[in-house]
Amino acid sequence: MNGAESLVHTLLKSGVDTCFANPGTSEMHFVAALDRIPGMRCVLGLQENVVTGMADGYWRMAGKPAATLLHCGPGLANGLANLHNARRARSGIVNCVGDQATYHRPFDAPLTADTEGFARGVSAWVRTSAKASEVGRDAAAAVQAARTAPGQVATLILPSDTCWDEGGAVAEPLPVPEVQQADPLAVRNAARVLREKRNVLLLLGGSDALTPGAQEQAWRIVAATGCDILAETSNGRFARGRGRPQVERVPYPADVAIARLAKVEHIILVGSRGPVGFFAYPDKPSRHYPEGATLTVLSRPEQASEAALRALAEELGAAAAAIPDPGPRPEAARGAPTPEGLARTVAALMPEHTVVVDESVSYGRGFFPGTHAAPAHDWLMITGGAIGCGLPLATGAAIGGGGRRVLNLQADGSAMYTVQALWTQAREKLPVTTVILSNRKYQILLGEYQNVGANPGRTAMDMLDLGNPDIGWVGMANALGVEAAQATSMEQLADLLRQGFAAPGPFLVELMV
Amino acid sequence: MNGAESLVHTLLKSGVDTCFANPGTSEMHFVAALDRIPGMRCVLGLQENVVTGMADGYWRMAGKPAATLLHCGPGLANGLANLHNARRARSGIVNCVGDQATYHRPFDAPLTADTEGFARGVSAWVRTSAKASEVGRDAAAAVQAARTAPGQVATLILPSDTCWDEGGAVAEPLPVPEVQQADPLAVRNAARVLREKRNVLLLLGGSDALTPGAQEQAWRIVAATGCDILAETSNGRFARGRGRPQVERVPYPADVAIARLAKVEHIILVGSRGPVGFFAYPDKPSRHYPEGATLTVLSRPEQASEAALRALAEELGAAAAAIPDPGPRPEAARGAPTPEGLARTVAALMPEHTVVVDESVSYGRGFFPGTHAAPAHDWLMITGGAIGCGLPLATGAAIGGGGRRVLNLQADGSAMYTVQALWTQAREKLPVTTVILSNRKYQILLGEYQNVGANPGRTAMDMLDLGNPDIGWVGMANALGVEAAQATSMEQLADLLRQGFAAPGPFLVELMV
Repeated sequence: MNGAESLVHTLLKSGVDTCFANPGTSEMHFVAALDRIPGMRCVLGLQENVVTGMADGYWRMAGKPAATLLHCGPGLANGLANLHNARRARSGIVNCVGDQATYHRPFDAPLTADTEGFARGVSAWVRTSAKASEVGRDAAAAVQAARTAPGQVATLILPSDTCWDEGGAVAEPLPVPEVQQADPLAVRNAARVLREKRNVLLLLGGSDALTPGAQEQAWRIVAATGCDILAETSNGRFARGRGRPQVERVPYPADVAIARLAKVEHIILVGSRGPVGFFAYPDKPSRHYPEGATLTVLSRPEQASEAALRALAEELGAAAAAIPDPGPRPEAARGAPTPEGLARTVAALMPEHTVVVDESVSYGRGFFPGTHAAPAHDWLMITGGAIGCGLPLATGAAIGGGGRRVLNLQADGSAMYTVQALWTQAREKLPVTTVILSNRKYQILLGEYQNVGANPGRTAMDMLDLGNPDIGWVGMANALGVEAAQATSMEQLADLLRQGFAAPGPFLVELMV
Repeated sequence: MNGAESLVHTLLKSGVDTCFANPGTSEMHFVAALDRIPGMRCVLGLQENVVTGMADGYWRMAGKPAATLLHCGPGLANGLANLHNARRARSGIVNCVGDQATYHRPFDAPLTADTEGFARGVSAWVRTSAKASEVGRDAAAAVQAARTAPGQVATLILPSDTCWDEGGAVAEPLPVPEVQQADPLAVRNAARVLREKRNVLLLLGGSDALTPGAQEQAWRIVAATGCDILAETSNGRFARGRGRPQVERVPYPADVAIARLAKVEHIILVGSRGPVGFFAYPDKPSRHYPEGATLTVLSRPEQASEAALRALAEELGAAAAAIPDPGPRPEAARGAPTPEGLARTVAALMPEHTVVVDESVSYGRGFFPGTHAAPAHDWLMITGGAIGCGLPLATGAAIGGGGRRVLNLQADGSAMYTVQALWTQAREKLPVTTVILSNRKYQILLGEYQNVGANPGRTAMDMLDLGNPDIGWVGMANALGVEAAQATSMEQLADLLRQGFAAPGPFLVELMV
């Protein structure tokens, strides 16, 4: 058995059965091993940031890591931005990166690069296999690292001779460390704050604090104590809709966030961190919560937040609390597109258990209030601010979601970074409906610019405007094998969403906003 | 004056007047400064690897660095692959990367990343400005580093407060170190080898060894001594066509390269390195030249190769030598597309001084013999093996080339990594004619696979085949604002090339191969 075969066998044995791939020459023995050994679903992406973004989306829905297959340092580099987002989402990924043969590296051939150096900034675990006999062992360790709570990026670098040499040995799966429970003292501290203090905010962050069960417990606490509740601004996976409490997020814009948090005196952190600005601005504070507010940690991101919330509710003797009814399901909006109308239309039409992938950037800041009365669904967001995650995330979520419908609300500028993902959606016939929010500019930057430099002149607009030439989203989707149509009104959008939701494969709507 | 304004003034004063940009929030003060201060041409790319690839192409043609404008660590990460290629091409680039404000960084906001860590693997020079008053000084140092022979990637990281704070000071341009001349002893050594030894190969590498003047001197040496001559496999810029000697490259495939070099006993390195494999293969040597061959350095990559060749020709007392006539200009080919037919057709139709950007990968290995009798032109190649450089390189070469026609011979799989570059070509109305070599597979990998694992099965083909669904290149180009058509025969290609070469802006031909 060669090293590559031991890698595939070990991954499968460790429960990794999906591989997002963009291979190159130095990975051919890995590809050959995948071909010979049945059991691994291989999904091709045409650019590496698509590959890593798919692996992120897969983890968020499947709750287990996929492997990636990337080509040498520059191939890994192409996928770093979405690995950055995955790191911020705390997603588990087993990155497999081919590299020059150990003995060939000193010759500094053209593709030779500092592969470990590129990996380090996004990975919790990095290792370069030294010989074929160690590849299996290293792969098992990589899967263990990826599965370690709350989920980590593990990068295994495989010089090509470690793949083609004989002597590979399949490794047994390594035990996944049990998820740490919150400190009982932390539970008692949080309970005391909630009992004794006023203006307390329960701040949920991370996927385990936003499951239906965790939110149910959080709602018991809110009902019993009257505390405030929010989720962090960006969240990997957020259970929402009918049957879940109507939890809002900390707003993104600095002024709005500061105003929203102005009265908070105590924050109980549940898998979250104290709210800070996405960016600094002159004469605005980095922290968005009041200077004197205290922070009390109930659970750290790597701890079991749902269990901690249950323990806290018990400690408080909180009764079971009915989740408030969000009111009737909205009707689809009419007339010209607006963010509120889009939220209502989506809430009106989305199938139950839809996975919403939200890279709507500036347009989507108000999507939450309008979608509380939608059927139960999951909401996946860009977590690390590296735009270009939406299309790949939606693609991976469809593969990890076991047939659930995916609705990708997608800003146009951001979509252009990883537009190649549409091709994978077509190839794999995935149930992804994409709504491109086509405003033909970097709208968020226009807003930021106006904060800085009054109205943009010609040179600034050359860098903020996407309208010259207009990008033809219908033609683009068709060129990549995805059926598509344009909507200029909410009525058209509703018709096209119905069509998209009924289609077995991908569909794209360019919504002119 | 704020830091951002001092940056723009200093760049302009140092001769940097073109900025390839994909800005974000933390760069808004830089954008505002560019808007207020005239003189900088700003060119938007819709993804960062387009931006860095354009800067590489610009340097190769303009011979001076452009600036880039990139957003935080993940934005830089998106552009690393083409910076890797630029590093291998020895291109000078002044990367300007925005970052979190110095005092905001400890809060580890979502976009915070190891920006310096990402930069280091591709940059000869990395600095993070500490305050506004130092930005001008740092920018001047970055330009100096970028211009230092043979050309270097310099990355200047600008925390946003260093841009918006007052106290900026414009810095005077720093002197560019003079290009080092080759050691006279090296010239004498090389002359002795050429006089006394048999089976000597003159190996040219790097742009300065492949100028028309350098090749003229090299040809004097060949004519006087009867030595063999080759260029390295990958070259940043290679003057070719009528009036230049018919220099071939070291072949890419290991077996072919080893056979070509089998009789070589002495190699004189002119800006080049001893030929090694792009990748290692089981049971094949890493070095492609014979084990006993000696290497003699005439000039290192950072030294003046053209001058060294002239000195060597003088030392040898070589007479001026007429450049051999390459024969009549070929006629355009007919019938089904073949690599040889494409080379002939390109040679028949390209305007004088065309800039050929070659990311044809496997299809283009034989393009050189068929194009020696083309009009004088420059040939730009992928240098670092990180595919996805062709479209951006062509775009930047058109901007740096002062109106020269650019012909991009482009593999389809590679084109998909940075397809967004077409939009910039349309926006800037650049004279770029792209020929997509549409074989709908990763052909080079199919070849590599067959070397490894016999015929690919279903799983392997899922990772090597691009034909499901077919990418519609005409629709893709149109969606990005570029006129396009498909050719299935050489006659059609010839008609479309004529049309493309006559167009003032970009044109794309999908050639079905």
